Amino acid sequence: MRDRVRIVEVGPRDGLQNEKQIIPTAIKLELIERLIGCGIQNIEATAFVSPKWVPQMADHSAVMRGLKKHDGVCYSVLTPNLQGFEAAAEAGAKEVAIFAAASETFSHKNINAGIAQSLERFAPVIEAARKTGVKIRGYVSCVLGCPYEGDIAPQTVAHVAKDLYDMGCYEISLGDTIGVGVPDNVRRLIEAVASEVPVPALAGHFHDTYGMAVANIVAAHTMGLRVFDSSVSGLGGCPYAAGASGNVATEDVVWLFDRMGIETGIELDKLVDCAVWISSRLDRQPASRVAQAIIATRKRN
Amino acid sequence: MRDRVRIVEVGPRDGLQNEKQIIPTAIKLELIERLIGCGIQNIEATAFVSPKWVPQMADHSAVMRGLKKHDGVCYSVLTPNLQGFEAAAEAGAKEVAIFAAASETFSHKNINAGIAQSLERFAPVIEAARKTGVKIRGYVSCVLGCPYEGDIAPQTVAHVAKDLYDMGCYEISLGDTIGVGVPDNVRRLIEAVASEVPVPALAGHFHDTYGMAVANIVAAHTMGLRVFDSSVSGLGGCPYAAGASGNVATEDVVWLFDRMGIETGIELDKLVDCAVWISSRLDRQPASRVAQAIIATRKRN
Repeated sequence: MRDRVRIVEVGPRDGLQNEKQIIPTAIKLELIERLIGCGIQNIEATAFVSPKWVPQMADHSAVMRGLKKHDGVCYSVLTPNLQGFEAAAEAGAKEVAIFAAASETFSHKNINAGIAQSLERFAPVIEAARKTGVKIRGYVSCVLGCPYEGDIAPQTVAHVAKDLYDMGCYEISLGDTIGVGVPDNVRRLIEAVASEVPVPALAGHFHDTYGMAVANIVAAHTMGLRVFDSSVSGLGGCPYAAGASGNVATEDVVWLFDRMGIETGIELDKLVDCAVWISSRLDRQPASRVAQAIIATRKRN
Repeated sequence: MRDRVRIVEVGPRDGLQNEKQIIPTAIKLELIERLIGCGIQNIEATAFVSPKWVPQMADHSAVMRGLKKHDGVCYSVLTPNLQGFEAAAEAGAKEVAIFAAASETFSHKNINAGIAQSLERFAPVIEAARKTGVKIRGYVSCVLGCPYEGDIAPQTVAHVAKDLYDMGCYEISLGDTIGVGVPDNVRRLIEAVASEVPVPALAGHFHDTYGMAVANIVAAHTMGLRVFDSSVSGLGGCPYAAGASGNVATEDVVWLFDRMGIETGIELDKLVDCAVWISSRLDRQPASRVAQAIIATRKRN
């Protein structure tokens, strides 16, 4: 049997979240259906956050209502607190994601709470999720650097990841929020985290801000990680530097693993079509190198 | 002492070669001076090829005449045959580069000669270079895939590299001409080549067509390579798919090694300035993710 990795598509939430123009719910739902048509089975669909903070996600309930049931497909939604969780559960969410930072300063600026306080805030969410059988995924942001604090100690990340795991998250996604990681410190990070959390419960969430995401995914894969977050067409950009790249493009990740002979279950050609489609809806070209190369090759043939 | 890698800047030749608009000699010379100002010491300056085939390089003698002498800086020029070599030597070249392919079909289409025949054609160049004390660098193209033949056997690359080395090339640059390599096959390739040519005589020349160049450089570095070719601002694009990326950007390579604590001798901030400058001369944005991120950060601050 071929090796296999699982891709968690975050385009519809993490990708679209920072778009200035409000994207119609129908486009979001069509994007999700197209992604599923490519073979993607894990999709972060929306976020139950206050529309005051994230206007783009104000239609979360409508998105949830519009999601179609597909065998094997798992949707998750981001929930920042108990109120968000209850609304998500009410709307039928079977998996929610919660998020902590590995940087005190980032945590304060992002959610107005320190790391410990943010974890406390999630305790009732996890409690409620357990009671209702909802799965919980945890994010740790700034795992390889913080826009305010610079380098982050791997031990700090390990502690936050362990707390989330011990609280009941089935998977912890380690986020290089500003894309400053390189393979060497990815290895050091995963070594540290793996001493606190089982490796099969870890996922990699790499940003391509400095073009290092694919190299970092390779390093993480070598360290045993088999789950990676990515965003179709590289949707999302970098909220900390407009004009820079953000989430690694799903096309680039699928191309990498295809060429390495590792199964993703995703059809690259269809995925490029999907990237072209959503990019045209957003009046831009796909940010993915792979999409650009495949589009160029199609034009040539 | 910190680990060190050597960057061979190929922007002025490999990068500009495919530009449709003819770039004035003065711009080429200013680019070279700016690159040297960033700390780059190895620069491929021009090519002594027929202007009929590569009009952009028609000013090769003028470029050679305009090059300034700098301590520690080494210029090289591409020479396809004895006639080119003689003109280059006449113009004062101290290092020339010759090129072979690891694909028979590519070799025929590119230079109208099979691999063996192309090597025979270089024998008199190498002979003449030896007599005059000119150093010779060898390129092997299509080492990880060919646009016509698909996958290329590592053994084939190893044989061509060995032939070039035995003929007298001091360094063999392994070129992933269409950017289809991934770290796994980079490792297999270098294992095969290293059994025929000493690793310190090998360089990596990776293209970023599918966004894999940095990951491949990391793999090659792990295998012992310490010399990498790159092009400022990612100049060059992909001659086999217009609109796709080509040469890995020097900025991305420098950023990678800076973050890994490995010395390149190159100042990244100045290099980004240089990328911005040459890109504006060519009416485009830098293709480098690192340049884009640094420009975005500068605008924000």
